[in-house]
Amino acid sequence: MSIHPAEPRTDRTATGRSPIPLTDAEIFAAHDGGKLDIALSAPLETKRDLSIAYTPGVAQVSRMIHSAPETAAQYTWASRLVAVVSDGSAVLGLGDIGASASLPVMEGKSALFKRFGGLNSIPLVLETNDVDEIVETLVRLRSSFGAVNLEDVSAPRCFELEAKLIQALDMPVMHDDQHGTAVVTLAALTNAAKVVGRTIPSLKIVISGAGAAGIAVAEILVQAGARDVVLLDSRGILGPSRSDLEGVKASYALRTNPRELAGGLAEALAGADVFIGVSSSTVAEELLATMSDDAIVFALSNPDPEVHPDVAARHARVVATGRSDYPNQINNVLAFPGIFRGALDGGATRITTAMKLAAAAAIADQVTSAELAADRIVPSALDERVALAVAAAVIGAIEPAEADAPVE
Amino acid sequence: MSIHPAEPRTDRTATGRSPIPLTDAEIFAAHDGGKLDIALSAPLETKRDLSIAYTPGVAQVSRMIHSAPETAAQYTWASRLVAVVSDGSAVLGLGDIGASASLPVMEGKSALFKRFGGLNSIPLVLETNDVDEIVETLVRLRSSFGAVNLEDVSAPRCFELEAKLIQALDMPVMHDDQHGTAVVTLAALTNAAKVVGRTIPSLKIVISGAGAAGIAVAEILVQAGARDVVLLDSRGILGPSRSDLEGVKASYALRTNPRELAGGLAEALAGADVFIGVSSSTVAEELLATMSDDAIVFALSNPDPEVHPDVAARHARVVATGRSDYPNQINNVLAFPGIFRGALDGGATRITTAMKLAAAAAIADQVTSAELAADRIVPSALDERVALAVAAAVIGAIEPAEADAPVE
Repeated sequence: MSIHPAEPRTDRTATGRSPIPLTDAEIFAAHDGGKLDIALSAPLETKRDLSIAYTPGVAQVSRMIHSAPETAAQYTWASRLVAVVSDGSAVLGLGDIGASASLPVMEGKSALFKRFGGLNSIPLVLETNDVDEIVETLVRLRSSFGAVNLEDVSAPRCFELEAKLIQALDMPVMHDDQHGTAVVTLAALTNAAKVVGRTIPSLKIVISGAGAAGIAVAEILVQAGARDVVLLDSRGILGPSRSDLEGVKASYALRTNPRELAGGLAEALAGADVFIGVSSSTVAEELLATMSDDAIVFALSNPDPEVHPDVAARHARVVATGRSDYPNQINNVLAFPGIFRGALDGGATRITTAMKLAAAAAIADQVTSAELAADRIVPSALDERVALAVAAAVIGAIEPAEADAPVE
Repeated sequence: MSIHPAEPRTDRTATGRSPIPLTDAEIFAAHDGGKLDIALSAPLETKRDLSIAYTPGVAQVSRMIHSAPETAAQYTWASRLVAVVSDGSAVLGLGDIGASASLPVMEGKSALFKRFGGLNSIPLVLETNDVDEIVETLVRLRSSFGAVNLEDVSAPRCFELEAKLIQALDMPVMHDDQHGTAVVTLAALTNAAKVVGRTIPSLKIVISGAGAAGIAVAEILVQAGARDVVLLDSRGILGPSRSDLEGVKASYALRTNPRELAGGLAEALAGADVFIGVSSSTVAEELLATMSDDAIVFALSNPDPEVHPDVAARHARVVATGRSDYPNQINNVLAFPGIFRGALDGGATRITTAMKLAAAAAIADQVTSAELAADRIVPSALDERVALAVAAAVIGAIEPAEADAPVE
């Protein structure tokens, strides 16, 4: 399951005009030597600088942290450093390509953390797919960073891994393929519902794909008040008639699908208001034609949406994709920089549902009511105001207890 | 055993005048927020930039690395990234203060790698002192970096850890407290010998301290041709009369001390030409008085040398310390940035004795014969030419087989 917000290899404007295809030459040139650099935040020009930043001055700082461990948050970079962690098991649409090949994606993620969240970040890629070994590794390294962004870990391992890391580490941990996607999708649906004059509780919502993204989207929509969510995996609708389910899927088969639908996409989409595709599969135009009036279609698979946005627009009032060359790009970069920035600035040790809901609301609110339209339900991925608004909202949603965790 | 080249908390000039004590206020201000930052080496301003550095463009790079793993060296930052790794078990003179409290030192080291070696570097501090767990952790993370600088790991664990990491990782690994110190000490002794008109094989050399630094200094001096090296630990001279030794110390008791001396510092120093202190203990002036004419004294403990340089100067022709406020500062920063830079630029997968000897020679050669004097045996720690000269020498010392390791 790969639901990276992405665009095809063109750079068309939001109107769909003027495609200038990316060339391999420019892509590889931009990656030559990697995409990250270390910079110094204190000068190292004089003997005095050296005496302050290294020995003997640094001993004062180490001694302080040793006697008062909580001061590490102030005097090292770790407390605001996000580890972007992957085992390379579900990278983009490429599948299990391994740690080293996943590194360019993680470097890109770290670059986005810096550019939009103002947060330092280092990629850590792991040559093991064993959940307990990954947890063990990060626990041993826990003093080296202040938060963990899990990335491109395959389902269903990603659910267990995230849960175990949250238990093991007293710091914000989030699997972005799940929750970043879920937050931005909720933001987009919030505004799409406004465009069609509906509320989220009233919508019949179909989610195609029950992997990391699909499950997380279902969860946040239920948390946001959705009452009629139907999830499908490759074998069809999750529901009471399915005897082949276990784990997270079995749980969601019970928690969703209140009308106890059975069958496939045809049964699910008949009369539905919302289609959310996070499956890498396709949806036939004739099925979209069976949706209700004023339908909403989010075809989020990358690089190829489940349905071409021009086709979807024949049957839906609001259409969104992960593509930058069409309107309504649903891109995780709207969420994760601000979520982590807010969590770290607010001293949170957990990223809670309340914080995610607040983040989604903040993203939705960045589109003013004057701007709001069927082709303008989310802000631009490059809008620098978004991460700060998200961070502020996240800080506001931190429970006192979350910001008051025991110091290690 | 702490033998960080360091200076006391003053910033006097090389003449010993004008001390301006460092204040806690300025030390902590310089450390506020940590000393490292992440910077972007590719722009992220436009949708096109985003499409190149992240999805969809990055998928091309990941696909390339997946199909041709050796291209990771070119298209990620990992191949030239040094992990500065510590378990915080022997930090400066502070002892076993743990991972978090060691982090300011590691950040400082990373800053020095960037400033003098032009190399990116990340600190990774580990909350385990178990050698096999540390090895296991770094093996799992091996795709994330291209070299390992071990730092502040206590002896004798450091010997086992370094050896196991060299075996486990196909990349340059060096415990700087051992080999950085050894290389700079050899460079200094090379030039000190010239000053007193001697050669290294002719010198009677006493090393006080048989921890990480003492053992490594003994080893490189023997490799450089020294024939009469006597090592002492806290119980006295290592030699055939000692029945309490095991491991590395037992081995050096046999490999050194050709005159089979027994006893303590008094027996070792009588008639000796060179005293090298890496022990954090002190040496009495009356013992220095028993050394030969034209004696050489390197009192390298930090922040307090084994003997004050002014006192040593009464009995020695050449005196060196780790202090920046006296002449002849023996500082590892002269060695490690250039050693790693050379190893990485040259494609080496090991840091060999030949490379260390070449590095020492390059450092020594940075002092021209016109400059060479009793108070000028090593270049300044801030001399930017040194790392490049060391790197070039290291590259020249790489055996073809070392640069031609199998690609993983």
